Amino acid sequence: MTDPKPTLAVGMVGHAFMGNAHSQAWRVAPRFFDLPLDPVMRVVCGRDAGRAAEAASRLGWEESSDDWRAVVARDDVDLVDVCTPGDSHAEIAIAALEAGKHVLCEKPLANTVEEAERMVAAAERAAARGVQAMVGFTYRRVPAVALARQLVAEGRIGEIRHVRAQYLQDWIADAEAPLSWRLDKSKAGSGSLGDIGAHIIDLTQFITGLRITEVSGQLETFVKERPVPAGETAGTLGGGGSSGELGPVTVDDAAVFLARLTSGAIGVYEATRFATGRKNAIRIEVNGSAGSLAFDFEDMNVLEFYDATEPAETAGFRRILVTEPEHPYVAAWWPAGHGLGYEHGFTHQVVDLVHALAAGEAPRPSFADGLQVQRVLAAVETSSDTRSWQEVAS
Amino acid sequence: MTDPKPTLAVGMVGHAFMGNAHSQAWRVAPRFFDLPLDPVMRVVCGRDAGRAAEAASRLGWEESSDDWRAVVARDDVDLVDVCTPGDSHAEIAIAALEAGKHVLCEKPLANTVEEAERMVAAAERAAARGVQAMVGFTYRRVPAVALARQLVAEGRIGEIRHVRAQYLQDWIADAEAPLSWRLDKSKAGSGSLGDIGAHIIDLTQFITGLRITEVSGQLETFVKERPVPAGETAGTLGGGGSSGELGPVTVDDAAVFLARLTSGAIGVYEATRFATGRKNAIRIEVNGSAGSLAFDFEDMNVLEFYDATEPAETAGFRRILVTEPEHPYVAAWWPAGHGLGYEHGFTHQVVDLVHALAAGEAPRPSFADGLQVQRVLAAVETSSDTRSWQEVAS
Amino acid sequence: MTDPKPTLAVGMVGHAFMGNAHSQAWRVAPRFFDLPLDPVMRVVCGRDAGRAAEAASRLGWEESSDDWRAVVARDDVDLVDVCTPGDSHAEIAIAALEAGKHVLCEKPLANTVEEAERMVAAAERAAARGVQAMVGFTYRRVPAVALARQLVAEGRIGEIRHVRAQYLQDWIADAEAPLSWRLDKSKAGSGSLGDIGAHIIDLTQFITGLRITEVSGQLETFVKERPVPAGETAGTLGGGGSSGELGPVTVDDAAVFLARLTSGAIGVYEATRFATGRKNAIRIEVNGSAGSLAFDFEDMNVLEFYDATEPAETAGFRRILVTEPEHPYVAAWWPAGHGLGYEHGFTHQVVDLVHALAAGEAPRPSFADGLQVQRVLAAVETSSDTRSWQEVAS
Amino acid sequence: MTDPKPTLAVGMVGHAFMGNAHSQAWRVAPRFFDLPLDPVMRVVCGRDAGRAAEAASRLGWEESSDDWRAVVARDDVDLVDVCTPGDSHAEIAIAALEAGKHVLCEKPLANTVEEAERMVAAAERAAARGVQAMVGFTYRRVPAVALARQLVAEGRIGEIRHVRAQYLQDWIADAEAPLSWRLDKSKAGSGSLGDIGAHIIDLTQFITGLRITEVSGQLETFVKERPVPAGETAGTLGGGGSSGELGPVTVDDAAVFLARLTSGAIGVYEATRFATGRKNAIRIEVNGSAGSLAFDFEDMNVLEFYDATEPAETAGFRRILVTEPEHPYVAAWWPAGHGLGYEHGFTHQVVDLVHALAAGEAPRPSFADGLQVQRVLAAVETSSDTRSWQEVAS
Repeated sequence: MTDPKPTLAVGMVGHAFMGNAHSQAWRVAPRFFDLPLDPVMRVVCGRDAGRAAEAASRLGWEESSDDWRAVVARDDVDLVDVCTPGDSHAEIAIAALEAGKHVLCEKPLANTVEEAERMVAAAERAAARGVQAMVGFTYRRVPAVALARQLVAEGRIGEIRHVRAQYLQDWIADAEAPLSWRLDKSKAGSGSLGDIGAHIIDLTQFITGLRITEVSGQLETFVKERPVPAGETAGTLGGGGSSGELGPVTVDDAAVFLARLTSGAIGVYEATRFATGRKNAIRIEVNGSAGSLAFDFEDMNVLEFYDATEPAETAGFRRILVTEPEHPYVAAWWPAGHGLGYEHGFTHQVVDLVHALAAGEAPRPSFADGLQVQRVLAAVETSSDTRSWQEVAS
Repeated sequence: MTDPKPTLAVGMVGHAFMGNAHSQAWRVAPRFFDLPLDPVMRVVCGRDAGRAAEAASRLGWEESSDDWRAVVARDDVDLVDVCTPGDSHAEIAIAALEAGKHVLCEKPLANTVEEAERMVAAAERAAARGVQAMVGFTYRRVPAVALARQLVAEGRIGEIRHVRAQYLQDWIADAEAPLSWRLDKSKAGSGSLGDIGAHIIDLTQFITGLRITEVSGQLETFVKERPVPAGETAGTLGGGGSSGELGPVTVDDAAVFLARLTSGAIGVYEATRFATGRKNAIRIEVNGSAGSLAFDFEDMNVLEFYDATEPAETAGFRRILVTEPEHPYVAAWWPAGHGLGYEHGFTHQVVDLVHALAAGEAPRPSFADGLQVQRVLAAVETSSDTRSWQEVAS
Repeated sequence: MTDPKPTLAVGMVGHAFMGNAHSQAWRVAPRFFDLPLDPVMRVVCGRDAGRAAEAASRLGWEESSDDWRAVVARDDVDLVDVCTPGDSHAEIAIAALEAGKHVLCEKPLANTVEEAERMVAAAERAAARGVQAMVGFTYRRVPAVALARQLVAEGRIGEIRHVRAQYLQDWIADAEAPLSWRLDKSKAGSGSLGDIGAHIIDLTQFITGLRITEVSGQLETFVKERPVPAGETAGTLGGGGSSGELGPVTVDDAAVFLARLTSGAIGVYEATRFATGRKNAIRIEVNGSAGSLAFDFEDMNVLEFYDATEPAETAGFRRILVTEPEHPYVAAWWPAGHGLGYEHGFTHQVVDLVHALAAGEAPRPSFADGLQVQRVLAAVETSSDTRSWQEVAS
Repeated sequence: MTDPKPTLAVGMVGHAFMGNAHSQAWRVAPRFFDLPLDPVMRVVCGRDAGRAAEAASRLGWEESSDDWRAVVARDDVDLVDVCTPGDSHAEIAIAALEAGKHVLCEKPLANTVEEAERMVAAAERAAARGVQAMVGFTYRRVPAVALARQLVAEGRIGEIRHVRAQYLQDWIADAEAPLSWRLDKSKAGSGSLGDIGAHIIDLTQFITGLRITEVSGQLETFVKERPVPAGETAGTLGGGGSSGELGPVTVDDAAVFLARLTSGAIGVYEATRFATGRKNAIRIEVNGSAGSLAFDFEDMNVLEFYDATEPAETAGFRRILVTEPEHPYVAAWWPAGHGLGYEHGFTHQVVDLVHALAAGEAPRPSFADGLQVQRVLAAVETSSDTRSWQEVAS
């Protein structure tokens, strides 16, 4: 018999879409990966006690709570997992860090740069005490994306000239789709820009190792008023009937921007919820002097790679099925060719986080990484307002 | 508070690849689906006590055992989940059914038609006592496959003329790949034919609602001797070093056959482990008088559908992203466009099974369905030996 | 000024679909390729004088004729291009060869093995006098196919284990599609088998360098009676109204067969006109010990190539755009990336033929190659009748 | 016998890549389409008499000339086809129009807005005398593009919100690729912007029926000096050895811009010669309230169409093989499924032009259409210089 592993007790705040995904990750990670700490799903927290209790039962948490401050204060919680809408990230994450809890915070880090800056300051203070903070850009942990990063780092793409990134959805392309908290600037901070644009900013910077330095952007709200759903809607994506009233959409439906990256590469970014027929299409293409990479989340187990050092006769984009034991994260799962799904990125996030915590290392992406993305988002908004290029603060 | 649900206590025999997949399904199904019975992962069983204990800990089973007969006899086990190689299916499944346990048995149902017939007889006797049996053709529960079945049942394809099915792998295309139990006829029953050919037989019959009535087949073993791995190899896919010896491959590397189906449709089937570059490509195409369907497991969240009633101008194969709440099984998971992976079919299998058990209904595919597949496999073998068409027994 | 090139005067018999394609080839080849002989489009011949004259004008032939025997006899014709239905190939080609004319004959070489054998004998006699014969399997000259052949010949695929080939059309999937000469065994010889199955037999043998040695096949006529079109139908694909009568379909709608190839490779072949939604899909996949190739004529400027010698991390099927100057035939056309179409294979056929004639070499595929394909077709028919494996005569 | 058709005698200026493509179109169009005028390839003109004579012989023109003014003045020329680099378009086209000749002018219409404006004025004066002018945006005549236009015009896409367009090449991604006239601003006017960006501007405006009203753009020259080829380079794409010297690249390697279109749609455009691995990828996607369209010239016989009025269960992007007789231009060519190539767009251009001339109608795209594209190009350049949004002049 071996000694039992040390545990990592988790308190999760928020139990909607992201809370569900994080729960699956905490539940599943130790079953496939050999983790140095044993996660314990201690307590889930939501504003409504009854719904929190139901979530605890359904999602498999030991307890529930309707008071996040109490959760943050518990001695038997080691890590606080923040899965709420963006308007509460700063308050909860800072309180948790100050209480000595590690924090995993969903993206975008915050709704404003100012909040994100305070979070980074709190994370730096916490780090000095060995308390870690991480922001949840989970798509980094899709094996095909991790492989893309690896190929760039190995120099297989050469000097990068072009980055093009699209995050295309269509769930509100119908003008009759109801208002939800995601369309309310006070809760969501921004629309497609912060919700999905943040992902492609992080993903492209992660893959290329470059940073966006200036942008020229444009935000657009195609449908300016929408039906208000009957009853409470916070935390849900529509659902239920309509109240018959129209309410204002206060966030962007679509965000597009040109970018300059360190090294002189040119970027073209597009995030929209109005790309009819595209459900969750994250498309990234990187062109370099030695090769190119292309990824589409609608075919998430595939990375396309063009090696320009091949003879012209046999050169071509390779459709790499990133389902082999040689690929990042894959060996822990199934035999060759048995693809993974959306949720596995969250599991890999837990794996990387737990390893970092056990090693006393700072997990990535850090709050500083999240702040930098926030600054790009802010620059895009400013640029859209001023109708001119805007430098990204640093 | 509501009363707790009745439970369904599971004893699982075998903890290799399939045991791992089944464990994930029992673990995850109740977290996403509202099940009428609450699965309890009671006991996992393997031939080696130490490895079984390790599996229990890793996979999250309450207990472990090295005696499947004891597991079958336990009063606190309601269902026996058979995840062993095919040579032990009959013995374990029949014993479990006779002990009044429901049985979920991995495919192929057995290594011989005779064994499968005895299993069906046992299942029929058990059914009379309300004890159910099911065989694990999990690919039926991939949402795109379930949608394909639904479209055929709705008549969207019309009268079916062509079925073409390929299951392509390449994991032993390298002549130096080691012998494993899967290449030993005494354990595995057959090679590509029973291991993966069985899947496309079941899948095409499920989707079309037709049965294969006669076949002309050919089995081939391209590499007749392979390195014997050092040490114990049962239940593993290679792994470890080689003993330096060569041992005979006693199963087929590839199996191809033509088929006639009820209704007069023509089928072409191919199962191989020598399709270099194809990792787990299950490709099915069905052509009918009113439309066509195409599926490829390498892009498992997609079903292609051609509707011949469309005007020629806009007719084309549609790439349906089977990731919408309107699609089978999908609403329980993530928002639109967030694809599932290989393992989700196993979860759906648990969901369907538990619903059937709670309703006192016979789950499908039944042991009789498994026997019918076995008879097709046997007809292919006979046809390959006799070099002529062979009717499928009924 | 340079001396004018010697000319090659062509007389073409038949001016329907194939005559149109051949005319384009004779017209265009000297404009893009530097040919050693200058083709002259001397005379086009058809059974109806008026329609032949119209064809001459439309297609750009100097003269027209309604008497192929007269064309064959002309001193100012060097080559006879046979574009008629298969029932007249033998008579015309043999007469032309005996008159000392080179012959290009459309595929399939003939409607029967016996006819094809007589044509080969005539070709051998003619060759002794420096008169050449070629059969028109033009798909060999699609650049992606020529590249496939080249990669196999270079050993990039290794030892070939699997060949799978499909030729899928749907133009008579509708049971109301009218009878045409292509559905009349007396004119067409066979249905999908000879018309399109012949192409995939030739293509796979060409690409792999192997020969089919035995087959197990099945022919099927799904729709046994069809509307007889009003008026003259020979040489047309339907067209015009219906006479109101039904007539018998005397050829196969679909042909499938398993095959053994020299070297022990296994083949699976399928030719059908009932694959709803597939318009002219020629799909070929070859799996070898060192790599694989895949081609689909619906994406004809692409060859997929899997190189198994690549590290697993970056291995994948490459989508080679066969549109680069380094690729076969391509340099004569457009800049990189500007794809070719169906008709270019015919142009390349003229190019290769003219070069062979100028060099006094035997062009390929020869009549003997065409006969061998005919023997495979015959073996498939016999196999379908006897319901057993059938050796291909040699 | 019918009376012979009236003829249309063509004088073509320039015989490089574009002259070759136009020659093929004049040669082939009357063989497949029933034209109201019979094109006569009267005279080809180039600066070098010897090379022009060689071109006449190779391309099939009756005569050659080294004096375009003489060609323009000939009584036996009805139409002047301008295939020279952009710096001479204005002079030749205006002279031809003033001489009463119809003009077909390659794109971009001119190298500057001022030149284009003079050309439009000349075209208007000529039109008053029944003399027509057309600019050669041939990609409009790819059948899949014409079908896209048709579906938008029929309202199948609804209100358009997003346009994304990329024209990706890589022929100078290698920093050692030589200087050519296309990299010389004095000859080419601009780089990727005018050469290939012009195409996607025209294509997206054609398909959507919208106009670009303002832009925010960025031009970039990644490689600022390149080897000067030895000897004469005008009119060639590199070729030959290098002189050993470096010369300045005076045009853009890549051009990206955001756009606003009439109706409020948002556009994202990217034209580059540095997209390693992309050879001639013209990708256009349009998202509307009722559906979406996607096109990629690397798969030019396909249009993808998403119909949002379909039930969610079976909605998906359809891969329409635009190879059916019901599709624009296709019926004149081959049977269903036999794809066309790059050059066919030029043939269709001739067809449409000849029909317009015979009917006395103004062919489209007109010189005014070309000027509007030129104004968008100019706005992009200005925007790149001023680093702010720029309205497109009208």
